[in-house]
Parts: sequence; C-alpha cells; structure tokens
Amino acid sequence: MQRYFVSEDQLNGSIVTITGDDVKHIARVMRMQEGEEIIVSNNAGRTVLAKLKKLSESDIQAEVLEELDPKTELPIKVTVAQGLPKGDKLELITQKGTELGVSCFQPFQASRSIVKWDMKKAKKKVERLEKIAKEAAEQSYREIIPTIKEAASFTQLLETIESYTHTIVAYEESAKTGEASNLHNVLNQVKSGDSVLIVIGPEGGLTEEEVSALEGKGAVLCGLGPRIIRTETAPLYVMAAISYHLELMR
Amino acid sequence: MQRYFVSEDQLNGSIVTITGDDVKHIARVMRMQEGEEIIVSNNAGRTVLAKLKKLSESDIQAEVLEELDPKTELPIKVTVAQGLPKGDKLELITQKGTELGVSCFQPFQASRSIVKWDMKKAKKKVERLEKIAKEAAEQSYREIIPTIKEAASFTQLLETIESYTHTIVAYEESAKTGEASNLHNVLNQVKSGDSVLIVIGPEGGLTEEEVSALEGKGAVLCGLGPRIIRTETAPLYVMAAISYHLELMR
Repeated sequence: MQRYFVSEDQLNGSIVTITGDDVKHIARVMRMQEGEEIIVSNNAGRTVLAKLKKLSESDIQAEVLEELDPKTELPIKVTVAQGLPKGDKLELITQKGTELGVSCFQPFQASRSIVKWDMKKAKKKVERLEKIAKEAAEQSYREIIPTIKEAASFTQLLETIESYTHTIVAYEESAKTGEASNLHNVLNQVKSGDSVLIVIGPEGGLTEEEVSALEGKGAVLCGLGPRIIRTETAPLYVMAAISYHLELMR
Repeated sequence: MQRYFVSEDQLNGSIVTITGDDVKHIARVMRMQEGEEIIVSNNAGRTVLAKLKKLSESDIQAEVLEELDPKTELPIKVTVAQGLPKGDKLELITQKGTELGVSCFQPFQASRSIVKWDMKKAKKKVERLEKIAKEAAEQSYREIIPTIKEAASFTQLLETIESYTHTIVAYEESAKTGEASNLHNVLNQVKSGDSVLIVIGPEGGLTEEEVSALEGKGAVLCGLGPRIIRTETAPLYVMAAISYHLELMR
C-alpha cells in the first residue's frame, strides 16, 4: 500500500489533508480514486490507515480508518556524519541510509574532502536530500523522515560528540591492521534509546589529526572487515550491521 | 597503492607483464614511472608487490619484489542470485557487492522481473559488469574478481541450489510478519569453506510459487529487518551482515 508523510497539522483527529506533490502522486501517478486506502504518517509517531474521501487539484481529504503501529524504527537513533564525498554520492547515502534506518545525516567538511560545501547552494542541496529522504522513508515504511543537516566544519562536528551515547569512526587503517572487534564491542554495549554517531571519512579518508581528535572525544575506531570499501559503502555496511545486531540477532 | 589484476600467464615467476587498459591506467591516468610500485593479483590466489621496470605504449614489465597475503576474502563463497532489476541497478549491485566480498553474481529472470534479459546484448552486458567487478575488486583489494554469469531462468536457478551448502532467500513477507532470526541462525551454522546462495527478488518481489519452489529445495526464508528495503539494497544488507558475523564478531 502507498505511504505518505504529512505534517502534524495535516493529520488532525480523524481527518487527513494531503497537499503539494503528494496530491499529484496520488491522483496522477497512482491514479487512485475515492474509497481507496493509503497509509499516512505525521513524522511524529502517529501512523494511520486512511480512506480517500475527496480528491481535488489542490488537496485530498482522507478519513482515518485505523491507528497503525508499524514498529519499523531501529531501537537507537543513528546519525551518519559523512565527510563530504564527490559527485552525487550523498544522494545514494541518503536514499540507502534512510532505508536502513538512519535518523539524521550530518555531512561535514573533512580535510581531504575534495568537494566544498557551497553555502549559496546549501539550501537547495539540503532540500534535494530531504526530498530523497522523504521518498525513501515512504518506500521503506519508516515512521519518521530522517533529518538532513547542513554541512558542519570538523570542529563543529567534534563539539557535538558529547551529545551522543556512542561515537563510532569507520577507519580504514584499523581495518588494514586487522582491527576486527570494536564495532561488535560497541554494539554489544548499545541500549534501546541510545544515540549513536557514525563518522565516515571522504574518499581520501580521515587524516591522522582528525582521527586523534575524534579519539580524544571518546570515539571508537572500527574496522569494517578486511576489504577496502568506498566512502559511500561504509555507512551502509555499518547500518546493516546495526540492524543485524539489534533486530535480527535475537 | 594501486592494484591490478592480470591473468595467470601474465604473472610468471618473478616477472609481471601488464597489457590492455591497465597500461593506459598506469602510464596516463596514474602517470607512474619506472621504479614505482604496484600490487598485482593473478585472480588465482597469488598477489605480489612489483616494481615497474619497462613502460611502453603496448605493455609494461614489472619485477616481483615480494609475495603478499592480503587475506581479504570472506571465509565462505557467496553467490548473489538477483532477480533481474530495472535500469542500471545490476551495476550498483555488482560494484558494491564486489566491495563486500561476493564471489559470483547470478542474475535470473524472475516472474515479476519487468526487464527481460536480452540475449543479443547478453555478451556486452556481462562484459560491462565484469569490468565493473574488476575495477571494484582492484579498489577493494580483493584477491579474486567475482564471476558474472549470464541470466538464468528460474528453473535453471532452482537446479543449482543443491550445489550450495546453504541457500538464503531475502523475503519481504517474512520481514512483514516479524521473522527475525533465520539469517542469524543460518550464519551461526556456516563453516569456513561453505558456499552460500542468496536469492533476491526483483522490484515486485518473488511470487508465492517461486518462494515455495525455493523452500522445497531447502532454502531458508529470511527477513532483513522491519523496514522494506529496495531490491538493490537487499544484497548489500546480507553481505554486510555476513561480513559482520564472520569477520567482526570474534
């Protein structure tokens, strides 16, 4: 069944009001009619089954049939701090990361990031990633749309570390020297409700200075297996490992 | 350091001969000179450190300095049987799957595959995926290049199941009904040297008939967490879980 996110004021009691692009999607792309059913989330913990009541060009009214409890969120909140990668990799990371349960994407300007975050285009860039996150959240039946933050400096990123329960750094050099237990150790300690920050370097990796600074704040350096995986593959590996450990190893 | 694959006859005793596109890559893209070092694998278990000796337009000679033992292969051989997906998703799956340790890619024509395998273009398609696999294998420091097979029919796929130690089916309906322990159970049973087949449906999923036929051959249906992940994300999830379980949970 098709799923849509609305804002909190659009899911009011037993009435859902759908506006914007989703109107087009329901009426034109899906060619749905009055009486057909959709799933609606308000991105704040409420998900309902609703029946389409009145379709117009500008908005669609639907009636709540049933309160749902999809239970599709990870038991922890994961923020992916990604050193700005080249090209459209941030889009792939946002789409796949959303499917895999990321709560927040925090790009950051790493020393070896070749791309610079263009402040003039920042708003558009964030909006584009938000759209990708929304669509992926709908497709994967998430209860929330992950947050997309504007790129932080490395110093700003460092300052946020203390607000997380655990910080994991995906570190290629750890993998090369055979480090192969830290990720598992951290995941063994994680408790429901914890917040976890995953820091991933850009294509050229994190510098030694960046790694030392992160370690100084209590971050744990983790190898992700013996193969060298690309910067955009690393967050997907960690998210799959988190899901496997917390959701399937029961 | 740059890594290259050559055929077995090109890595002969202490002499490496590099031909084809890699000559261009070494001389023009990397602008390497005599005396510089590369890593060369023969795709048959031998990996060496070699020093460039003689560069010409048509080939490059290098001298073996040291035998290496990268130990970057998973302890099991994994074949990903992917129901033919739309667009260029098979390319993403091949690149990321190679990084994550897949040994063989076996596309198959699923009932709900919208794309048909074009027999006339099959050779070109396989060659294109082989090139992606080779580049990803070099980049991720694999010891072998994964094999790419031409698309099989579902019946042909079924006939191969008995040749694998374990067959896992990524099954969305399992996830929806909360099945959340089969993948972990299978991975707990896996032993070094085993062969594992992972069957993944196309965008529309596997049909009930396909799932029953797979179960009839002893395949285990596995949920991949409560979120609904796209067809191209499923193999990456399973590969990351395999690596996490077999390489990091020690």
